Amino acid sequence: MKQNKHDRILLAHGGGGKLSDELIRKYILPRFKNPALEKLPDAATLNLDSNTLAFTTDSYVVKPLFFNGGDIGKLAVCGTINDLAVAGAKPVALSLSLIIEEGLEFSVLERILDSIARAADDNDVAIVTGDTKTVEAGAAEKIFINTAGIGTRIEGVTLGFDKIAPGDKIILSGTIGDHGMTVISQRKDIRFQTQLKSDCAALASLTGELLDKTAGVKFMRDPTRGGLAATLNEISKQTRLTVQISEADIPVNPTVRAAADMLGFDVLNIANEGKFVAVVSPDCADDCLNICRNHPLGKQAALIGQITETTDLPLVEMATKIGGKRIVQMPYGRELPRIC
Amino acid sequence: MKQNKHDRILLAHGGGGKLSDELIRKYILPRFKNPALEKLPDAATLNLDSNTLAFTTDSYVVKPLFFNGGDIGKLAVCGTINDLAVAGAKPVALSLSLIIEEGLEFSVLERILDSIARAADDNDVAIVTGDTKTVEAGAAEKIFINTAGIGTRIEGVTLGFDKIAPGDKIILSGTIGDHGMTVISQRKDIRFQTQLKSDCAALASLTGELLDKTAGVKFMRDPTRGGLAATLNEISKQTRLTVQISEADIPVNPTVRAAADMLGFDVLNIANEGKFVAVVSPDCADDCLNICRNHPLGKQAALIGQITETTDLPLVEMATKIGGKRIVQMPYGRELPRIC
Repeated sequence: MKQNKHDRILLAHGGGGKLSDELIRKYILPRFKNPALEKLPDAATLNLDSNTLAFTTDSYVVKPLFFNGGDIGKLAVCGTINDLAVAGAKPVALSLSLIIEEGLEFSVLERILDSIARAADDNDVAIVTGDTKTVEAGAAEKIFINTAGIGTRIEGVTLGFDKIAPGDKIILSGTIGDHGMTVISQRKDIRFQTQLKSDCAALASLTGELLDKTAGVKFMRDPTRGGLAATLNEISKQTRLTVQISEADIPVNPTVRAAADMLGFDVLNIANEGKFVAVVSPDCADDCLNICRNHPLGKQAALIGQITETTDLPLVEMATKIGGKRIVQMPYGRELPRIC
Repeated sequence: MKQNKHDRILLAHGGGGKLSDELIRKYILPRFKNPALEKLPDAATLNLDSNTLAFTTDSYVVKPLFFNGGDIGKLAVCGTINDLAVAGAKPVALSLSLIIEEGLEFSVLERILDSIARAADDNDVAIVTGDTKTVEAGAAEKIFINTAGIGTRIEGVTLGFDKIAPGDKIILSGTIGDHGMTVISQRKDIRFQTQLKSDCAALASLTGELLDKTAGVKFMRDPTRGGLAATLNEISKQTRLTVQISEADIPVNPTVRAAADMLGFDVLNIANEGKFVAVVSPDCADDCLNICRNHPLGKQAALIGQITETTDLPLVEMATKIGGKRIVQMPYGRELPRIC
């Protein structure tokens, strides 16, 4: 049964006139009530605790829009929070910009907006400014979302590749591959999809605790597109040090492992949306691990390797389960489009 | 002649692997060199003069990508600068997020990136953080761009609907309709296209001067989508006051007027990308007008009306050229999609 035209987004909803106003006031504003948004100024005014801030942006084009464990809305909030979190900041405010294809059902838009509102509330960040554009049917795929995020720097914390030194330990906050394998399995419509679940989550409460309670965190990154392999290669490339990891120590859910094996993916290359890699000084590695394991988002955290001097070329070396050694390469990049 | 595959964006350029890295390091970073970007952190660190800031976002989906007077890149920089400028802020930093359709020619991407870099340089704002996604051919139209912007509040300045009072004067910084009519004419491929030129420009130097040199500016807005009609209706709606304007005083380029008349558009509803409306106290209206007229972007600034008490319903009333009165309504919104 075809839905009534009024149940769907029209081009006019992005025209800047009455229908735009209605879309914003009826569907968007009520979900994100806060003083900065209320009068729809051209720019939100924010009073921060500090004038040193972190600023980041990400666009989300994930397909399908809804997947086990999350949806494009939750992803758009959590992903941007995570970029602030791993940079050592406390997320404060997000912008929300929607590019909507004409014909999108309002019911779908509302589910996504609800999810955005819930994720923002859960993580105590405010959506303070936004934008809505519409494009003709066929000029986009349902909806693309951009969020930019502002956070305040956590006092006394400076993270960066330049802090990393030989001997530092590498902690991974949990299992890898969950998000990417969930999305790809739901796209391919294959059978084990119900057991796979995205790890999509906002990490700021865990990273905040780590930075508050320990002094040895030197660098963090969330291994999203390109997976753990890309993050570790970036560390090696930027520091010109060698990264040694142990395959046996990397937590992977058995279903994810099975799905990756079956479809021929290397789980190291698969995107995650609720995990981080932390490089920490050796003396605080145990503390960090304990803090992670006592937090709901870090129960399966593991020490997966260390940083060592480079003798020849800086590389990521993995001791394999069967006792060999393997170079983990930077993925080339065409494996999994539109996972975030 | 079909171009070689390597001259075009591949899906893999958004995969987070080697090709993503190459796209960012070879095409993007060299154009936006600044310390915040250099090491590609998950979030940029900014040290601002103030901890009261302005934050805004806009996505740009304009079609065609290039038009007389500008392109999607220039628009994406100027539009977001303008949202900060009219909010009474000094633009400091932008984020840049690209959603690119597989198959986009690198030559097109480079032209757009050059334009973004030039517009950012010209206006002394830095592109400090970014993101690049790719989607399959047919899942987007060439390229969509999001910029979010951060500015610092200009000291002593608070603008808002709540400052507006009866007797206040309305200044328009120049001609209206230029951007929207240029874009629509180039889309319809009609003949007068060469004489129409978008007004796409960043207004921060002019708004900054106004706010520095006078104390009577109460509210500003750039009349983009929905045009002057939408901006004035929003003022009337939010203040519950009547807005009176005079048609004869509204500057319109003759070519724009002719194009709008020919195509049946009301020039009041057409988008502008380099103009603002300012509501100012009566005693400083002349000063404001002079400042505008002495600035390259405000040469044709005009006093177009005033705010008055509402006797019945708050409305936008226009004294027409032929001596009548017309209610200017909020546009419905379907006239001109994808103009910005």
